[in-house]
Amino acid sequence: MSKAFKLIEVVGTSSESYAVAINAAVEQARKSISGLGWFEVTDLRGAILEKGLEYQATVKIGFRLRDE
Amino acid sequence: MSKAFKLIEVVGTSSESYAVAINAAVEQARKSISGLGWFEVTDLRGAILEKGLEYQATVKIGFRLRDE
Amino acid sequence: MSKAFKLIEVVGTSSESYAVAINAAVEQARKSISGLGWFEVTDLRGAILEKGLEYQATVKIGFRLRDE
Amino acid sequence: MSKAFKLIEVVGTSSESYAVAINAAVEQARKSISGLGWFEVTDLRGAILEKGLEYQATVKIGFRLRDE
Amino acid sequence: MSKAFKLIEVVGTSSESYAVAINAAVEQARKSISGLGWFEVTDLRGAILEKGLEYQATVKIGFRLRDE
Amino acid sequence: MSKAFKLIEVVGTSSESYAVAINAAVEQARKSISGLGWFEVTDLRGAILEKGLEYQATVKIGFRLRDE
Amino acid sequence: MSKAFKLIEVVGTSSESYAVAINAAVEQARKSISGLGWFEVTDLRGAILEKGLEYQATVKIGFRLRDE
Amino acid sequence: MSKAFKLIEVVGTSSESYAVAINAAVEQARKSISGLGWFEVTDLRGAILEKGLEYQATVKIGFRLRDE
Amino acid sequence: MSKAFKLIEVVGTSSESYAVAINAAVEQARKSISGLGWFEVTDLRGAILEKGLEYQATVKIGFRLRDE
Amino acid sequence: MSKAFKLIEVVGTSSESYAVAINAAVEQARKSISGLGWFEVTDLRGAILEKGLEYQATVKIGFRLRDE
Amino acid sequence: MSKAFKLIEVVGTSSESYAVAINAAVEQARKSISGLGWFEVTDLRGAILEKGLEYQATVKIGFRLRDE
Amino acid sequence: MSKAFKLIEVVGTSSESYAVAINAAVEQARKSISGLGWFEVTDLRGAILEKGLEYQATVKIGFRLRDE
Repeated sequence: MSKAFKLIEVVGTSSESYAVAINAAVEQARKSISGLGWFEVTDLRGAILEKGLEYQATVKIGFRLRDE
Repeated sequence: MSKAFKLIEVVGTSSESYAVAINAAVEQARKSISGLGWFEVTDLRGAILEKGLEYQATVKIGFRLRDE
Repeated sequence: MSKAFKLIEVVGTSSESYAVAINAAVEQARKSISGLGWFEVTDLRGAILEKGLEYQATVKIGFRLRDE
Repeated sequence: MSKAFKLIEVVGTSSESYAVAINAAVEQARKSISGLGWFEVTDLRGAILEKGLEYQATVKIGFRLRDE
Repeated sequence: MSKAFKLIEVVGTSSESYAVAINAAVEQARKSISGLGWFEVTDLRGAILEKGLEYQATVKIGFRLRDE
Repeated sequence: MSKAFKLIEVVGTSSESYAVAINAAVEQARKSISGLGWFEVTDLRGAILEKGLEYQATVKIGFRLRDE
Repeated sequence: MSKAFKLIEVVGTSSESYAVAINAAVEQARKSISGLGWFEVTDLRGAILEKGLEYQATVKIGFRLRDE
Repeated sequence: MSKAFKLIEVVGTSSESYAVAINAAVEQARKSISGLGWFEVTDLRGAILEKGLEYQATVKIGFRLRDE
Repeated sequence: MSKAFKLIEVVGTSSESYAVAINAAVEQARKSISGLGWFEVTDLRGAILEKGLEYQATVKIGFRLRDE
Repeated sequence: MSKAFKLIEVVGTSSESYAVAINAAVEQARKSISGLGWFEVTDLRGAILEKGLEYQATVKIGFRLRDE
Repeated sequence: MSKAFKLIEVVGTSSESYAVAINAAVEQARKSISGLGWFEVTDLRGAILEKGLEYQATVKIGFRLRDE
Repeated sequence: MSKAFKLIEVVGTSSESYAVAINAAVEQARKSISGLGWFEVTDLRGAILEKGLEYQATVKIGFRLRDE
């Protein structure tokens, strides 16, 4: 039997750290998709603010496609 | 507060130029998605026709995910 | 006239071969999307089981976006 | 039945734009090769002149190999 | 004494598998070139047909250049 | 509690197919290492023989490091 | 005798096309640096505005370092 | 109207985390450059010390070039 | 006099952060190898759990090879 | 007026150094092609012999295509 | 305490070898910058002359940024 | 019959040239491993000393795995 998964790409942001930014991306995906399985970080960028930084993490998120 | 964005990948085509092909990709996305923010060109290809070329531009388009 | 296509990324798996894994990914996409046109293999991975292997093929699948 | 294609790499140049440079590369290939099918842009460079720029586009061009 | 080799890039296709597609590319090269030595797979793509897939494998093929 | 894994790179060969070549690489690793978990294909090459091909698959293999 | 060159990376923007964006980057460099020789396009991105696009081209620009 | 930006590459270090290392790189740039806008992480490395680690983050920093 | 170093690739995991995951990888290596010198992060991935994330950091670790 | 160039890929070998291997590749191309202009090193490999090494340098060589 | 370094990219050339070309790049940087620490080779190219070759090595050079 | 090979990654250093650095890496491997077959250069870096340079070449070395 074969299984299939889909990959989507989400950018999460945070003024604290990349860890929080990655969590923001995954939690946003969790709101509308079930069966989330894994993620891969594909880009780390950010904005330079008057004070401090905005961390922007791009993550590919994989989730199982189910047959109805 | 953290924000999240989604990236989708669209290929636009044109017989005129890559500029028109990129516009075609973005305008197609605009029809069904609001909050489009930025794009990145990830591939430039094309078909060779009897006369002239068909330009094919692959673009990643980022847009804001909103909480309902 | 310009056309537009969308690319999605799907992972297919199989205990037999990458050929079957790629087919699983495409057939899963065919269930809900029409106008599938082409695919690109972007990653070949797998799990090592007690006996044999599980082949995992990541494919980008392109399909035509139609104006309604 | 299986088909085979060959890929060659050509650099076209133009003082106007990359579109003209890509056309120059393809038209040069058309002079001696039939069955040209598609191209991929692999490098965009240029020379900086006293006045203006010389655009240099590297393209891989695919064409069908025929059995005689 | 130094030797030299040339690399050419060929795309083979097959409706069966990538193995057959790679063989098609190499056999096509064998028709007109002697001294073929090795190959590297540089791209795995395909077309999605009404029924089944067309596998397209791009291979770089190396062969010895001989002094006459 | 945190876990750690090691990645090794092995090349398997076969005169039949890449599937057999990948299996050869994993089975060779299984002889001396326990706890093999997953693999990633990092290179697909081959030798062109008088008759047929020798498929060479490079795979990164991951296995769990255990504390004694 | 050996020569040396320096590479700097500049992003030019334009609401018209990448050609204008690349020109903007080079002309900006020309204001303060002499001996500009060549450029390489390293990234093509853009912003999606209410109406139309802002093209952003990243170019590496090479210029000769002179001994005083 | 077109704008231009320059990209510089800076390595920040920290014995605490990559977040602190990235901040060190940006703050160092802020001392002598105004108009800093964004950054991209291009490399994550480090030194292994007798006790603990030294985190080294390479970041490309973009800032606006202004006409005088 | 010339020196030589070896690079090994280790994956560390943590439910807290990538910093802890990288430390886990390096500390695991320290148990059996002396003369560790530096590391490079080559992949950042993770598993999505019922609650929270498991961070997985792949690091290449360099250490000095000594003549006996 | 626009010009066009072709790129070919040649592997040169030498038991002395990569410099000699690159020269071997270019000199071999010079035998049958005129108008050679530049080269780019794309791969550095080699064979390990009983005694010493065989250096193998892959170079892309560009030459001008002329209209007859 | 955290330190910061800057990376610049310089191309050195030589008619003898890449070693001399890399030296030319570093020595040119040494004329105006103190605290040079390390380099990375990012590109190896060259020009094909009537007689012999001109070797062109692109190197990223890192140096310490000091607080005044 | 299928064969298997292992790849290890070694960094060799030299104050003379990359050729000597690569030799140092291979000779170090030869001390403890038999059946060395080929190598690939994966990174060229170096340290900038008070006087001259230290060349650092990273090479992947392949050797045959034998069944006992």
